[in-house]
Amino acid sequence: MTVDIKRLILGKRLQTKDLPHQAISKPIGLAVFASDALSSTAYATQEILIVLSFVAGAAIWTHTETLAGITAPIGHFALPIAIAIAVLLTIVTISYRQTIHAYPNGGGAYIVARDNLGEVTAQVAGAALLTDYILTVAVSISAGVAQIVSAFPELLPYRVEIALTVIMFMTIVNLRGVKESGVLFSIPTYFFLVVMFGTLIIGILRYFTGTLPTMPPGMEFDLHHETGLSFSLFLLLRAFSSGCTALTGIEAISNGITAFKEPKSKNAAITLVWMSSILICLFLGITFLSIQTQVYPVELPTVIAQLASVIHGENTFFYFLVIAGTTLILLMAANTAYADFPRLAALHAGDGFLPRQLTYRGGRLVFSWGIVALALFAGLLIVVSGASVTFLIPLYAVGVFLSFTISQAGMVVRYNKISKLKPGEVVKGLETDMTYEPSWRFHQIVSAVGAVCTFVVMMIFAITKFTGGAWFIVVLVPVLVYIFFQIHRHYKEVAQALSLPRTKVDTHARPIQTLILIDNVHAETARMVNFAKSLGTPWKAIHIGTNPERAAQIRAKWDERIGEGTFEVIDSPLRLLAEPIREYVDKLLDETPDGYVHVIMGQLVMDTFWEQALHQNSAFIFNLALAGLERVVVTNVPYQIHHEHDSEGHDHMVAGEKAH
Amino acid sequence: MTVDIKRLILGKRLQTKDLPHQAISKPIGLAVFASDALSSTAYATQEILIVLSFVAGAAIWTHTETLAGITAPIGHFALPIAIAIAVLLTIVTISYRQTIHAYPNGGGAYIVARDNLGEVTAQVAGAALLTDYILTVAVSISAGVAQIVSAFPELLPYRVEIALTVIMFMTIVNLRGVKESGVLFSIPTYFFLVVMFGTLIIGILRYFTGTLPTMPPGMEFDLHHETGLSFSLFLLLRAFSSGCTALTGIEAISNGITAFKEPKSKNAAITLVWMSSILICLFLGITFLSIQTQVYPVELPTVIAQLASVIHGENTFFYFLVIAGTTLILLMAANTAYADFPRLAALHAGDGFLPRQLTYRGGRLVFSWGIVALALFAGLLIVVSGASVTFLIPLYAVGVFLSFTISQAGMVVRYNKISKLKPGEVVKGLETDMTYEPSWRFHQIVSAVGAVCTFVVMMIFAITKFTGGAWFIVVLVPVLVYIFFQIHRHYKEVAQALSLPRTKVDTHARPIQTLILIDNVHAETARMVNFAKSLGTPWKAIHIGTNPERAAQIRAKWDERIGEGTFEVIDSPLRLLAEPIREYVDKLLDETPDGYVHVIMGQLVMDTFWEQALHQNSAFIFNLALAGLERVVVTNVPYQIHHEHDSEGHDHMVAGEKAH
Repeated sequence: MTVDIKRLILGKRLQTKDLPHQAISKPIGLAVFASDALSSTAYATQEILIVLSFVAGAAIWTHTETLAGITAPIGHFALPIAIAIAVLLTIVTISYRQTIHAYPNGGGAYIVARDNLGEVTAQVAGAALLTDYILTVAVSISAGVAQIVSAFPELLPYRVEIALTVIMFMTIVNLRGVKESGVLFSIPTYFFLVVMFGTLIIGILRYFTGTLPTMPPGMEFDLHHETGLSFSLFLLLRAFSSGCTALTGIEAISNGITAFKEPKSKNAAITLVWMSSILICLFLGITFLSIQTQVYPVELPTVIAQLASVIHGENTFFYFLVIAGTTLILLMAANTAYADFPRLAALHAGDGFLPRQLTYRGGRLVFSWGIVALALFAGLLIVVSGASVTFLIPLYAVGVFLSFTISQAGMVVRYNKISKLKPGEVVKGLETDMTYEPSWRFHQIVSAVGAVCTFVVMMIFAITKFTGGAWFIVVLVPVLVYIFFQIHRHYKEVAQALSLPRTKVDTHARPIQTLILIDNVHAETARMVNFAKSLGTPWKAIHIGTNPERAAQIRAKWDERIGEGTFEVIDSPLRLLAEPIREYVDKLLDETPDGYVHVIMGQLVMDTFWEQALHQNSAFIFNLALAGLERVVVTNVPYQIHHEHDSEGHDHMVAGEKAH
Repeated sequence: MTVDIKRLILGKRLQTKDLPHQAISKPIGLAVFASDALSSTAYATQEILIVLSFVAGAAIWTHTETLAGITAPIGHFALPIAIAIAVLLTIVTISYRQTIHAYPNGGGAYIVARDNLGEVTAQVAGAALLTDYILTVAVSISAGVAQIVSAFPELLPYRVEIALTVIMFMTIVNLRGVKESGVLFSIPTYFFLVVMFGTLIIGILRYFTGTLPTMPPGMEFDLHHETGLSFSLFLLLRAFSSGCTALTGIEAISNGITAFKEPKSKNAAITLVWMSSILICLFLGITFLSIQTQVYPVELPTVIAQLASVIHGENTFFYFLVIAGTTLILLMAANTAYADFPRLAALHAGDGFLPRQLTYRGGRLVFSWGIVALALFAGLLIVVSGASVTFLIPLYAVGVFLSFTISQAGMVVRYNKISKLKPGEVVKGLETDMTYEPSWRFHQIVSAVGAVCTFVVMMIFAITKFTGGAWFIVVLVPVLVYIFFQIHRHYKEVAQALSLPRTKVDTHARPIQTLILIDNVHAETARMVNFAKSLGTPWKAIHIGTNPERAAQIRAKWDERIGEGTFEVIDSPLRLLAEPIREYVDKLLDETPDGYVHVIMGQLVMDTFWEQALHQNSAFIFNLALAGLERVVVTNVPYQIHHEHDSEGHDHMVAGEKAH
């Protein structure tokens, strides 16, 4: 009995009707969809501080700078930056509530853009989002591993290996299919929320009672990044754009509206507001306490680990709880992308902009190809970056903000269309129905403000982080869109070339000339001759003679053992196989302009891969050579050879089908 | 017009009759076959000194040790070791002269063993030699690169990359086929000999005139290896076995006797004596001067580079000549293995002990598979070792000495057989004829002495270098031999299973049931139906219904556009493709125990790889699923889609064969 490794790892196959249809409540929905957004608080503050430290290195709490009349230690500028990000988050949240109501069946940027702005914009939004989902996996796992190595510095040399192991594990889990069963998914999110809010409350209490310590100044640590830049608005904007990674993931709920209980849109919108509020509290709290405790602006130990050690004491139970909670939610965030990327890729593929294979649900009902592609790209990013969050941050979030902008611009266009409807009129849309709304102008202004804000932020991103890596995304997205349209054109053209008139096709019988390709004369040969004879079409045997003596031997064997039909040798002094047969077939085709040439070849089929590897697959060469010829049909006659135990228990090989 | 990249890189195909038959003179023969043996002087002395430095580190010229009553600086023990190796070399040379005379058609260890000691021993000799050819490439290229980085230390970080580039270049050159045209091959060998003997003569003259400097003591260098071992006979033997790498390659001439001018055997034997004499002079000279100049016992800079800098002055013209000559001959040595490995692998494969593919000569008449396999394994060794000669040396030469032992033991057995002949009697042998020789006993003793010596040395190798890496070879060779016999058994059993009686085979026609696999109804489908109808056997169309609605649509299209024959849907709620069709076919086979089931499927053929990748190859899945069934024959009906420019120059896709 053989063990089915695939089934062991991936589980048994599921039927299409097993797709889950279970609706989830708001608290569960929050847990399922919020991990991506909430987890970004694990690195957003830290990345702001790292950019600020470009000026004065570790001295961000003593080195004072003045901007617009405000004089403060440079690190203190993190708080106004965080507040600006919170305002931006509020705007985007209000704007996205509208999208959720307008697209109750799911209003991701791709769908909104396709519905309102046309194919090209939709592809741009999709390309940006797909890129960003890959980065979500790479950044979240890198940040999660950073928490672990902050607590266990002896693991530092194995960062990349740990991150790759996590990716591999997550890929297998997702290929099995994650039942988004809510309860399991809410544990890490609520665990993180409890631990993190607990920590923030304790920290703030200790601040007000004057017992909050600061990190010991002058402690040695490596900055690992440039310093000595001059302080400027440009640098502040760069810090702002690094902090804006906090906004990644807030679009998750708009993709998943259908998962909520009725009234779906209302529940989803409320959950979005909850999520944003929590996110703002966490982000501002972490930033405030980071300033008060004067953390080091470094990637390792992470700012979260530093805060936990200052507030709870290093290596205490609560310290490890914070590390564990943060790591867990970061891994959950990566897992979100494992659901989003394949689903979006399947949408693209369904519209013919990505390879069709991406739309096939595997044995476990998941989009297996998309999962594997995501894992490969994210793994590559982790290897290239050495699992460093700071290295990846400049690439990150440009795509998300581009999709925010497109999605909201789409909503502006949509409200324009709605304004032209008569009160009470309903228009069937591609995705969702449109009805007149009296307050359309207000909604439109909200979407427009959101779109302008996110567009401005995106430009700030692209400019301030351009040399740091954002250039790559700026180049990549148009290239992807170009490729998507090339693929689309290909599918359209193939469909065109294959299309039949809507009438009955003429399929009158044509003459067939059968050729049997012979390498030697043995049992497999006899099988091929037998099949050709059974077909009843005219046939002859062909041998490619790379060696004249051998060809003569084979002819003799043919006469002795087969002894019927024509046996013809095609000389091939250059020991080529494909070219001589192709020429021969070409000639036959010319002789019978209406007929088929039917080439029969044998194929030894062994039990195992290794045994198969011992037999030259000339069939493969012939297939390749003949595939380009019209009116040529290739038949493989398999001949099975397998092991069998005789009555005395000896293993030997016999021809024919294996008993099963 | 497309450029044929393969032809550009590898050159045009050659006919079998183009195989070279040109005979070479002794001086050319020396150049062609000696590079492997002579090049080992580039590292043999150095590796002896490195082992001696295990005791006292860099202090090998001041740290004094006593053994068997001799007291001397430990480095001075290198000279008696080198003399012992020279004696061994003389014994092996005398013994191999006999082999050359006995096997005028080529007397490699594999052939001698197969002829006299049977299959198992021959396979052991072959496995040992194949392993060692791989090591020859890895060691020689690593040593060549070591010369280069000795002269240009700034290249040191790129050792591995340089070595891999050399392997890649050498692989391409050998896939093109090296015309062993003698003249070209003799340049590096004679260049090396002139430069090296010139250096040795100048060095010895300066020694006798008292003007030979020594390396400045105490100069800083890294030892990169263990020190502090105690001096012992074991360590001396270990140094001896490291030095014995000087003997690798002296078997080359016995493989290549047929390349010489008549009288082949005599000329080859004379060339062997020349080669060994030159080798002994070089090796003793280098060792003597290394002791007198007190070189550092290190891998980098190499001992050759140190000698050159002491004798000629650093970075002088002559210094670079020595570096260049040594590098060249080392690369030539690696190139020798590129000829030997594929040839020996083809011998094994021809006897059915390695995959048959190894016997096929490629377009350029070389054993392409063997060349590629050699390059892959050698490249792997270089990556694992970091291109370090000292790392590879413990693995090296065990195999060669095993093959020396087997070959000479074979000769002992052969002289036994000869002793039983009557004077003047000639016995037809497998490889070569045997005649009575009156002095057989003398020859037998020579071979026996050689065999015993090389056996003892091999055991010294295996024991003293066991923990250093020789264990790997000790394990590897039996494993290889086991695999070889498994392969052999496989081929024998397949031939048995395929064999036909030497009489006419019964090939009476049988009933055929044809199934057309339908995914959709379009032009490709019409083509398949047309072919099935043309065959004239009973047929029906089958659709694997993974989606009931889609299946209904396809049935409607079938009725509208094809409108004849039977259209049957096989439900597959698990979205499986292979299993339902397999079950269906199984049932049909049961119903007609004597008949064939003939499955026809379509295959879209695109112009380019990328376009092809956009189309799911379900044909591949079906082929795999059905290949195991007896009496099932699979036909692929290709349908070509390609780009065409219309009269207005627009590119669009059309069905059918591409004009060529």
